[in-house]
Amino acid sequence: MTTNHEPIRDIAYLSHIELLTPKPTESLEFFRDLLGMEIVHREGQSVFLRGWGDQQLYSLKLTEEGQAGLGHVGLRAYSQQALERRAQDIEQSGYGIGWSDGDYGHSRSYQFMDADGHVLEVFYEADKYVTPDHLKPGLKNQPQKFSARGASVTQLDHINLFSSNVDADSTFYRNHLGFRLSEQAITDEGKQTTAWLHVTNKSYDLAISLDKSGAQGRFHHAAFKVESAEMVLRAADVFLDNGIFIEAPPNKHVAGQTMFVYVYEPGGNRIEVCSGGFLIYTPDWETVTWTPEERKKGLAWGTPLPSTFHTYGTPNTEK
Amino acid sequence: MTTNHEPIRDIAYLSHIELLTPKPTESLEFFRDLLGMEIVHREGQSVFLRGWGDQQLYSLKLTEEGQAGLGHVGLRAYSQQALERRAQDIEQSGYGIGWSDGDYGHSRSYQFMDADGHVLEVFYEADKYVTPDHLKPGLKNQPQKFSARGASVTQLDHINLFSSNVDADSTFYRNHLGFRLSEQAITDEGKQTTAWLHVTNKSYDLAISLDKSGAQGRFHHAAFKVESAEMVLRAADVFLDNGIFIEAPPNKHVAGQTMFVYVYEPGGNRIEVCSGGFLIYTPDWETVTWTPEERKKGLAWGTPLPSTFHTYGTPNTEK
Amino acid sequence: MTTNHEPIRDIAYLSHIELLTPKPTESLEFFRDLLGMEIVHREGQSVFLRGWGDQQLYSLKLTEEGQAGLGHVGLRAYSQQALERRAQDIEQSGYGIGWSDGDYGHSRSYQFMDADGHVLEVFYEADKYVTPDHLKPGLKNQPQKFSARGASVTQLDHINLFSSNVDADSTFYRNHLGFRLSEQAITDEGKQTTAWLHVTNKSYDLAISLDKSGAQGRFHHAAFKVESAEMVLRAADVFLDNGIFIEAPPNKHVAGQTMFVYVYEPGGNRIEVCSGGFLIYTPDWETVTWTPEERKKGLAWGTPLPSTFHTYGTPNTEK
Amino acid sequence: MTTNHEPIRDIAYLSHIELLTPKPTESLEFFRDLLGMEIVHREGQSVFLRGWGDQQLYSLKLTEEGQAGLGHVGLRAYSQQALERRAQDIEQSGYGIGWSDGDYGHSRSYQFMDADGHVLEVFYEADKYVTPDHLKPGLKNQPQKFSARGASVTQLDHINLFSSNVDADSTFYRNHLGFRLSEQAITDEGKQTTAWLHVTNKSYDLAISLDKSGAQGRFHHAAFKVESAEMVLRAADVFLDNGIFIEAPPNKHVAGQTMFVYVYEPGGNRIEVCSGGFLIYTPDWETVTWTPEERKKGLAWGTPLPSTFHTYGTPNTEK
Repeated sequence: MTTNHEPIRDIAYLSHIELLTPKPTESLEFFRDLLGMEIVHREGQSVFLRGWGDQQLYSLKLTEEGQAGLGHVGLRAYSQQALERRAQDIEQSGYGIGWSDGDYGHSRSYQFMDADGHVLEVFYEADKYVTPDHLKPGLKNQPQKFSARGASVTQLDHINLFSSNVDADSTFYRNHLGFRLSEQAITDEGKQTTAWLHVTNKSYDLAISLDKSGAQGRFHHAAFKVESAEMVLRAADVFLDNGIFIEAPPNKHVAGQTMFVYVYEPGGNRIEVCSGGFLIYTPDWETVTWTPEERKKGLAWGTPLPSTFHTYGTPNTEK
Repeated sequence: MTTNHEPIRDIAYLSHIELLTPKPTESLEFFRDLLGMEIVHREGQSVFLRGWGDQQLYSLKLTEEGQAGLGHVGLRAYSQQALERRAQDIEQSGYGIGWSDGDYGHSRSYQFMDADGHVLEVFYEADKYVTPDHLKPGLKNQPQKFSARGASVTQLDHINLFSSNVDADSTFYRNHLGFRLSEQAITDEGKQTTAWLHVTNKSYDLAISLDKSGAQGRFHHAAFKVESAEMVLRAADVFLDNGIFIEAPPNKHVAGQTMFVYVYEPGGNRIEVCSGGFLIYTPDWETVTWTPEERKKGLAWGTPLPSTFHTYGTPNTEK
Repeated sequence: MTTNHEPIRDIAYLSHIELLTPKPTESLEFFRDLLGMEIVHREGQSVFLRGWGDQQLYSLKLTEEGQAGLGHVGLRAYSQQALERRAQDIEQSGYGIGWSDGDYGHSRSYQFMDADGHVLEVFYEADKYVTPDHLKPGLKNQPQKFSARGASVTQLDHINLFSSNVDADSTFYRNHLGFRLSEQAITDEGKQTTAWLHVTNKSYDLAISLDKSGAQGRFHHAAFKVESAEMVLRAADVFLDNGIFIEAPPNKHVAGQTMFVYVYEPGGNRIEVCSGGFLIYTPDWETVTWTPEERKKGLAWGTPLPSTFHTYGTPNTEK
Repeated sequence: MTTNHEPIRDIAYLSHIELLTPKPTESLEFFRDLLGMEIVHREGQSVFLRGWGDQQLYSLKLTEEGQAGLGHVGLRAYSQQALERRAQDIEQSGYGIGWSDGDYGHSRSYQFMDADGHVLEVFYEADKYVTPDHLKPGLKNQPQKFSARGASVTQLDHINLFSSNVDADSTFYRNHLGFRLSEQAITDEGKQTTAWLHVTNKSYDLAISLDKSGAQGRFHHAAFKVESAEMVLRAADVFLDNGIFIEAPPNKHVAGQTMFVYVYEPGGNRIEVCSGGFLIYTPDWETVTWTPEERKKGLAWGTPLPSTFHTYGTPNTEK
């Protein structure tokens, strides 16, 4: 049990996400052929995929549905005790849904909803990835061959949720899951418009952005990592050559200082390919706060993101 | 207090090292002009330096001494309680030296020796870096301007100690400091020849290599990080142009999969400039073990490191 | 003399430009400290600079003047005969100014004006760069140490002139100097709005853009090359950190497919740092023509350049 | 006709090579799946392939044969007159074989042998590449989609021939084909051991190395270009993951300063994946000469190439 004054450190990392798509074939082609992920399993209306560097069995569950959006987010606990602690805490907080028997690739998980209604699960016991022969890498400390196909994404990096109340949601993730607030953008009144939170040494594993549409529980984007800024540029070329809509061309974020390119996968979900960004090692990191005045400068090198970046999410409520 | 069955997680990261040099002027020029570090303080026979991305005040204390080698290693605890726990545990284990009043930039620290006799200290309270005006960066979530000088190293990445008994030392770091064993190279008899250990998400923060010379407490190398493989190549060009001895040209390590270049700074200490490598997120990572047979293949792409890599350390006992 | 049906191939490359600046101190600091160029000579109101990879003595003559703009463009002929042929041809065409005694670093040159009134000179005999000891490189087939300072630009890459009549100017460069038209952007009526022309294997050494201001002989920008896309991003960081106005952040051009970042040096001239782009080897390259419809798509990955890119030039007539 | 004192400038570039392989299936898989080339045609025992950036129809003719080696080298003339001039000159010099009716993709060519017996052809008229729909790129000034498969090589860059008499061969290429000598390595007696020659702005399109085996007309290697040093490292990973023999891991050449990785394709021919290197613009470039003493330093950053690099060629006479 953690003591009163020591931080919760029970979540190891963001393990997987489930994305919903009304165009399962086209979405699958996007993730497999253009991002370069591998299919590890099919079950019901779902296909499970992994990046070549994902240490767990899969990082993406792609499920056919009537409209695009987030199915759920999977968080991996550090240990069985850590899982029990989180389940008990969330149960008591009133956000709990309850224990499930698990899903393909992992044992029982505790399911819950965040303040804005996104569905999450936390689990510990999970099946290891057994590399098939044709994907065996040259170095055995690597889970799988470098995919060398399309953007060749390494692994799931982070997610960004849309929320009707960023303050409430970021507080939930901090208080009940042990996320720490790396950076935040606020209004002149001090309300959060974006919160960047981390549980690993990455400067963020989770971002939460203000959804002004009035909707709840919407999804902003999922980001898959590549190994360098150059590979982000390369990914943009792959998207350009293959007719994928590029919402924002490669550029550098202020928060986190990651290089990015944003596209919409054929099912409609916004996907980022990213690289770089700093790691946070210091235990007394002070949250960096960006004012509206500072945010007006746009991205790191001075241009703004397109306006759709602040309004478009899935499900798309503006159709 | 941690429970019996949960891992020690009290060390946040490797904060600084003290290197000894018999050529203080030339060594300082190396770190400042060729690695691109900044001087933050001078005191007695020591100069304190930082990389532009170091989150703490400094990562290198460079001290004039009769011969090259390691002064000490500074570890930052996660919290004051974490510091007290480690001090108490090490005290009881018999490795302790005792509390010091601190050093430039940090408060009281607990000092101790590892199994092979390297001196370390652990501390929590530390002064923050206050960026001088001429080094103020464009983005305030960055501690300092990108240095844009020489190899422009970002920050201290890891250290590698020589040890007369790798098993004993890696056990010490695991049991008393909470390091986890990412990878190891072993003899046919199962004794460790190199151990790679981590406390952050990096695949290693500390490596320990077998010193066959019979000496104890020697230093193998310190590694400073750059942001990409390309910048490792660039660093090699800087070293070539400026007459620095390149012991091993840029190549890719098997363990950790980092890109590297190894040089001797003018004082004689081996310095690595590195990039890349994977992060470990999964809480049930299984130590990767490399056999002598596997190690014969050399580096990732098939050439060996030079033989000096396995014999040369500081102080240089082979003179 | 070339035969009737064979192309003119008398110009070797773009050797240097003279830029005028009303802020000579600040401009010099920009080129030396932020682009990483070296001063090779000072004479009168001029400073002569070179990139570390420039094969000639200098590529930039920076001259104090009341307002920013282009002094002149220096073209190097392939041989003494080639120079005589060009001088004779231009003399006959009516564009000639006449022979000069040369300038610092090169012998007599033939001076002339293009159709829009930009001043150029063509010369052959030139002094070689003698590398001073402190800049001697590790490899003697490199003219100078890698500068490892600021953006560390390699060399002058290309220039872009503003012209009141692009068709007339591109015809002049093709007919009298042997430039070939790699790509062009045209209006619906077929008039050129930009022409990209090459004399080397680069896809362009010279671009000419439509100046709608009514002015003549204005300068659009000069581009200095770095070795990779990543170094363009790095240059943008250097500009951001040092308060240089970034007109257009790193992105990829459609024409030539170069990565770029555009800034205004303190004197007001637009400067590009660029990398990449394709080389043209095939002797029967067909000019690629971009229609207004195609140009609407913006840059390679889908965003437009800022509107100032199409209006701002030096001297700045819009003040 | 060129005048007495002006250089021959009749060859535009190295257009294609024909490689012989005793393992046509495995070799084809190597070039298509691991280098990422596209098949454009099959005819008899040959398959014709191209890199995504090749401006001509194909750059590699892969032909089944009893043993590995060079079939022939294809050079593209600048014009029909240039072709006639070269044919006439070579015919008179006694090296000529005679006119052929052409091959897949190009019209009549003049065939000849260099001093060491390698077969070459020079031609001008050639079919253009018509991009099939599934390979149409996003930008029409690019011949084909970026391949995004394996090493994704851009195009054929240069070839290296083994020769029993480098001086004789380099003289042949200079006097009869207009190649210029960029760099050379010589013995203490002044005899060439390697010659690097160019016809484009690249620092070399052709290298000739001393074959001490006594054999004649052997092949050393062909190099395919990628866009950055990072992609050379990436190529090495692809080779490692797929069991291709890496003769020399990524490193930097002294001559030309190119980054490289050398492998043997399954048929036995040495293949290089390269990037970078400088361009030669200055018309009065002075040949850089490397002495045996200087060559002892090895590669740019100080290690030697493996000894096989100086002995192994195809056909392999040492079996």
